[in-house]
Amino acid sequence: MTRRRSSARRPAISVLRIGHRPGRDPRLTTHLALAARAWGAERMYLHPPDPILAERLAHVAREWGAGFTVEPAPDWKAVVRAHAGAVVHLTMYGEPIDRRLPELARQRRLLLVVGGAKVPPELFQRADWNVAVGAQPHSEVAAVAVLLDRLGGIPPARRRKGARRRIVPQPRGKRVLGPGGRKRGRDR
Amino acid sequence: MTRRRSSARRPAISVLRIGHRPGRDPRLTTHLALAARAWGAERMYLHPPDPILAERLAHVAREWGAGFTVEPAPDWKAVVRAHAGAVVHLTMYGEPIDRRLPELARQRRLLLVVGGAKVPPELFQRADWNVAVGAQPHSEVAAVAVLLDRLGGIPPARRRKGARRRIVPQPRGKRVLGPGGRKRGRDR
Repeated sequence: MTRRRSSARRPAISVLRIGHRPGRDPRLTTHLALAARAWGAERMYLHPPDPILAERLAHVAREWGAGFTVEPAPDWKAVVRAHAGAVVHLTMYGEPIDRRLPELARQRRLLLVVGGAKVPPELFQRADWNVAVGAQPHSEVAAVAVLLDRLGGIPPARRRKGARRRIVPQPRGKRVLGPGGRKRGRDR
Repeated sequence: MTRRRSSARRPAISVLRIGHRPGRDPRLTTHLALAARAWGAERMYLHPPDPILAERLAHVAREWGAGFTVEPAPDWKAVVRAHAGAVVHLTMYGEPIDRRLPELARQRRLLLVVGGAKVPPELFQRADWNVAVGAQPHSEVAAVAVLLDRLGGIPPARRRKGARRRIVPQPRGKRVLGPGGRKRGRDR
């Protein structure tokens, strides 16, 4: 398998998260959104919608760079139907990622669908591919991150537009540049 | 960068999770443990300890295969001191993974340390390397999964010993073999 490092050629990615539970601890879905954003996905459709979580990610975009949004999906089937591209359901029961990756990499647009504990059986039929990132009990956060990593790696830091803050990588401690280039935070 | 597919040659991996919050929603730490297990880590040290979460993962091991444990870490610094190998702190503020991966891949044993929202500043000093899996707001689940994926990929399914259940990958639906080879679950 070849790693495709050129993110210019990789598919445009949307994620559809089914089975979110607003009002419960939002960290898991937040991490899913952060991972999708960090690996260059364009948006996450969220079913059921959760305006508080969407605003949290909008805040991340204002601070750390735009290009990723959380969009409400009151009807997840409508999102699948409306998607102009291939639909990939990530499930531990599906075909191995190694087998399907070359086909996925050739698509122009991918919708990655991840469920919670209970996945609607219908999803297995509606997806173009059911793909397993490991045939073991799953983390959907890990599955999305690893699939995107294999499709194109981590987008270069310089491509984040509109960021108020930017990390300067350090062997020790934290260094963050804020508005106007001044340093925020401190080295440790 | 070369993908190292031979998991026989990759470092033995332990994960240390700092800042778990027992009693709150355990899903995020559960997903971290599931991801570590699925990508072939040997154990996760958990600070503070959480016997309920450890038992949940022990149940996963009984059903889906052994070789991964959750171990209590009342004193995280003691775990770091006692580790006979390199210590890698995963943080969005660290050096890019692409730069450090070749060195990490040459180690015999790695301890991957991930924090929660607040990381003890001391950790930046105690780690041999502070490594960023993307210099953007992080998911520790994604960071651990992607680092392990790059170090050795997904372990082959046949290597799970002691599993009572095994998934037979399918293009559609679920197929699971249970004790004695009989089918559990059903195709959809």
